[in-house]
Amino acid sequence: MIEELAWLNAPCLLPNNAAAEAARQRQNQLTKPYGSLGRLEEMAIALAGMQNTATPSPDPIQVLQFLSDHGAVVEDISAFPQIVTVQMLRNMSNGGAPVTVMARALGVRLEITNVGTVGDPGELPNVRNERLGAGTGNIACEPAMTERQLVAGLNLGRAATERALAQGAKLLICGEMGIGSTTSATALACALLGESAATLTGPGTGLDVNGVARKTRVIDVALARHVTPDASPLELLQRLAGFDIVATVGAFITAAQHGLPMVVDGFIMSSAALAAVRLQPQVREWMLFATASAEPGHQRMMTALNAKPYLDFGLRLGEATGALAVVPLLRLACELHQHTATFAEAGVSQD
Amino acid sequence: MIEELAWLNAPCLLPNNAAAEAARQRQNQLTKPYGSLGRLEEMAIALAGMQNTATPSPDPIQVLQFLSDHGAVVEDISAFPQIVTVQMLRNMSNGGAPVTVMARALGVRLEITNVGTVGDPGELPNVRNERLGAGTGNIACEPAMTERQLVAGLNLGRAATERALAQGAKLLICGEMGIGSTTSATALACALLGESAATLTGPGTGLDVNGVARKTRVIDVALARHVTPDASPLELLQRLAGFDIVATVGAFITAAQHGLPMVVDGFIMSSAALAAVRLQPQVREWMLFATASAEPGHQRMMTALNAKPYLDFGLRLGEATGALAVVPLLRLACELHQHTATFAEAGVSQD
Repeated sequence: MIEELAWLNAPCLLPNNAAAEAARQRQNQLTKPYGSLGRLEEMAIALAGMQNTATPSPDPIQVLQFLSDHGAVVEDISAFPQIVTVQMLRNMSNGGAPVTVMARALGVRLEITNVGTVGDPGELPNVRNERLGAGTGNIACEPAMTERQLVAGLNLGRAATERALAQGAKLLICGEMGIGSTTSATALACALLGESAATLTGPGTGLDVNGVARKTRVIDVALARHVTPDASPLELLQRLAGFDIVATVGAFITAAQHGLPMVVDGFIMSSAALAAVRLQPQVREWMLFATASAEPGHQRMMTALNAKPYLDFGLRLGEATGALAVVPLLRLACELHQHTATFAEAGVSQD
Repeated sequence: MIEELAWLNAPCLLPNNAAAEAARQRQNQLTKPYGSLGRLEEMAIALAGMQNTATPSPDPIQVLQFLSDHGAVVEDISAFPQIVTVQMLRNMSNGGAPVTVMARALGVRLEITNVGTVGDPGELPNVRNERLGAGTGNIACEPAMTERQLVAGLNLGRAATERALAQGAKLLICGEMGIGSTTSATALACALLGESAATLTGPGTGLDVNGVARKTRVIDVALARHVTPDASPLELLQRLAGFDIVATVGAFITAAQHGLPMVVDGFIMSSAALAAVRLQPQVREWMLFATASAEPGHQRMMTALNAKPYLDFGLRLGEATGALAVVPLLRLACELHQHTATFAEAGVSQD
């Protein structure tokens, strides 16, 4: 382990089982049939355990949005040109992107970070410029990034979570945007799960059948090149991931080390979740999973993470939009938990 | 047709296809991959068509909550005693029930109406007292209600929707509470769908296996007694439904006649939706379906209504809680529709 990454091995906290159990007991005393609020009960119980409180609440929420370019786009594996990454960065800066619209509507904090677009757009309003490089390398031909970039990316994510904690965040959401990102995420997930590209590769932003076939070949080439029997999860991240994914892994692990609950977005964030959990299994204890991605390989990742996402809305946008869609349901779950009267309070017969 | 119910045959409006198509075109111009917001796109497009506007919004929202007792409880078909209906009415009056907690958290208008509890609790704060009788009859032995009660119940629901419209409601949600209500709803749905009780009967608020078997027998007896080959949907309502369901049918049909969109809650409201659509097929055009009920017969109803509910959260509470859980998702869908920048506005390349 590189010395500057020694923090990755610092222990994670664990949710408080007694608080979760107390929340479960309270749910069973609320004026409704046993278990009848289903996953809304689960949400409140999970957050009560993670936050070690009788009055769980997702707020304040911090969204970390990482943008970067992915070198494999030279292999023609995306429906959009690479320039769109910077164009969407400007769109986010101006508040016109889906994630910015949702964050504003929900009243959550949003931090947008350029972690490595090919071109340097300079300073933009509402954007942190922390480029790790001019996009990653083409994973079909070379490692995605250098060891220095890996270290810097993980540390960047760590610092972002620490800022969120310093500002009082009680829930963390990470999102990403970057043309070519599903190729990096798919390659990483295949490597971590020991799957072939054919199992996990999908259309991303909208490839046709030929495009998916091409993308599958590119990922198979990358896997053949980079997945050695002795490769550690960190080495796989360096060789296959994107800057966005690496930053997210750093953010996720830091969150678990501080006991900060997370809502994991769709396909790409799930690949980061897989890597984080591989590095530190207890990270899983702090994760709620938002949405079943329309990307076909996502289900395989959810199975590996023993996760059952809340929503199945056919989302395949990224940008944390799936996680943000779950936010109001978490809020409702906590409102119900806290404010529904108990059988005793309401004088309602239990049986 | 009884003369006082002639209004039931007044034509329904139809959503505006051009407005829906314009919304679909706009979605395809927003800065995101084609179709990548999945059902959030569907929601905005559907509301745009129903509201005939380029700027759809679910608000203001009116929730109509109908409470009543169901005579079949004498057959021991519920996990809770009948007195709970009035106890929960008081709980709603005091703001302690799940529906009241959710309505308050979401800032939606809630009208609670006692349409026929067995006992008369008198005047309660925040509750309309419009009892149609001391609960319905035991459908295993007699019709649920008289023709006069049927007429009064449908008219009561009509008047409730008309009040909502007069107050500017742009979306209608109906909910119910009443011990025994799944028995009435299941019997009605079986009659309308030509199914046997075994196909649709479930545990309701929490019956065990023996309880479900008993409930199934009671419903089969009721079906054998009341489902005659020539029975009209109105006759089936009179013989098998609850006052809550009948009021909802009146509310739903009135909404469609005025072009007011509805979000249909779970199992019991779906049985009312089935009846309303049987009476006037175009009512379906105004319905969004909230939630896949944990009650096993619900899927059969959804198939009959060609509906794919948004949430699968294991909800089985009623009280409009499923429909209310969808409200923030409708709001987000409309925010995204209205405020996401287009490719042209943001200067983002489309391909």
